[in-house]
Amino acid sequence: MSKGGSDLGGDQIEGRHAVLELLRAGKRRPRAVYLSSAVTRDDIVKEIVDRAGGILRSVAPERVEQMARSEVHQGVIAMAPALRPADLDEMLSVKHAFLVAVDGVTDPHNLGAIMRSAETAGATGIILPRHRSASVTPVVAKAAAGAIEYLPIALVGGIPAAIDRASRAGCWSVGLDERGDRSLFDLDLADQPIVLVLGSEGKGLARLTRDRCDVLVNIPMQGHVESLNVSAAATLACHEVARRRHR
Amino acid sequence: MSKGGSDLGGDQIEGRHAVLELLRAGKRRPRAVYLSSAVTRDDIVKEIVDRAGGILRSVAPERVEQMARSEVHQGVIAMAPALRPADLDEMLSVKHAFLVAVDGVTDPHNLGAIMRSAETAGATGIILPRHRSASVTPVVAKAAAGAIEYLPIALVGGIPAAIDRASRAGCWSVGLDERGDRSLFDLDLADQPIVLVLGSEGKGLARLTRDRCDVLVNIPMQGHVESLNVSAAATLACHEVARRRHR
Repeated sequence: MSKGGSDLGGDQIEGRHAVLELLRAGKRRPRAVYLSSAVTRDDIVKEIVDRAGGILRSVAPERVEQMARSEVHQGVIAMAPALRPADLDEMLSVKHAFLVAVDGVTDPHNLGAIMRSAETAGATGIILPRHRSASVTPVVAKAAAGAIEYLPIALVGGIPAAIDRASRAGCWSVGLDERGDRSLFDLDLADQPIVLVLGSEGKGLARLTRDRCDVLVNIPMQGHVESLNVSAAATLACHEVARRRHR
Repeated sequence: MSKGGSDLGGDQIEGRHAVLELLRAGKRRPRAVYLSSAVTRDDIVKEIVDRAGGILRSVAPERVEQMARSEVHQGVIAMAPALRPADLDEMLSVKHAFLVAVDGVTDPHNLGAIMRSAETAGATGIILPRHRSASVTPVVAKAAAGAIEYLPIALVGGIPAAIDRASRAGCWSVGLDERGDRSLFDLDLADQPIVLVLGSEGKGLARLTRDRCDVLVNIPMQGHVESLNVSAAATLACHEVARRRHR
């Protein structure tokens, strides 16, 4: 059933918000939700307990600790069917498509944070390269705070080829690059179908990727520190698109 | 000499960008810079070696590992005099003051990321509560990517009282709050002296803090995930001020 699903991960979800959104979204029925008996039953935990119903397992804190694959599980872990990759062409055909392509981001906190910010900005999908540690680990899922339950994720052979496909589908590709000759805040394409393209933490966009983008935009920097964290840059870019689309 | 300096931390700096900016800024002369002999000598490392001069110690990778207090030292650690807290009243008297008050953020990655984004947006200072784990640990310094070398940091007894002092000095205080009745993007105070006020990761602004703010702004959310990470919210708010000041 889940052909290719295991490539993407997402089968172990840790942390209160991530587990709550898994249950709220209702798209993947978890097999079990493990709750540490030491967790304080605040509103979020109460809603998790309510929604989990018969699959809730109240267990000793040490048990959760043993199962956890992140350090920030907050006493809650869900086991779910793996995420199924979405189809890029379907994602490109969505009206007002707003996709975020992430090329070479290796830090799981950054990858998850990018997904969270993208979802809150109304992005309609994420594009990840298949071969560069794109898997949704528990750390990615935790940092995404539930965004993986709502955002379709396509796995592609390479970002440059995905940009070509986007272009043929009538989608503009906008690369974030400190050498870009235009400010992000002058981007007037935001109400068009768009793919925002982000490079890796240290090196930014790879040359091949940069060359394929229709537009390169920079984020104006006012201080001494030379660059923003990639997830901070993604947050600004995604919410700039949202600002222009919803004003 | 460094009265109160040890409260603020910042005496051990780990990671390539953080150490490089320590040396570039030249405000605190480090006692020693330890470089793992296994580190690749790219442009950043070469500049660190050049600038460190006689205080450079090339050591075995295990030695750096032993000294490190973060997991992301990248083979480079500097020992420096602790940071000295800045004076709030001096910070408030700066022309076009642009301060960021951080109330109750406990995650060191978030605190550092907020400082990094604030510095890149042209903020002129940071306000931290003295008693709530405000210390600049190696993890904070690493995530700040050098911002602590340029941004004055004031330690205060409490954020509400600091907001009052800001008000008396003619500074507007703008709280980020999801219940705010105005969009961040409609904030027309940005060219005035301003203090952006951020709350904690889970709970947002404390009531006392919220009540003291002149304006509360929200960040428009377009998806299902309920909130942004606090450092993502800070990035948007800081760069919105920058966008309005520099357009």
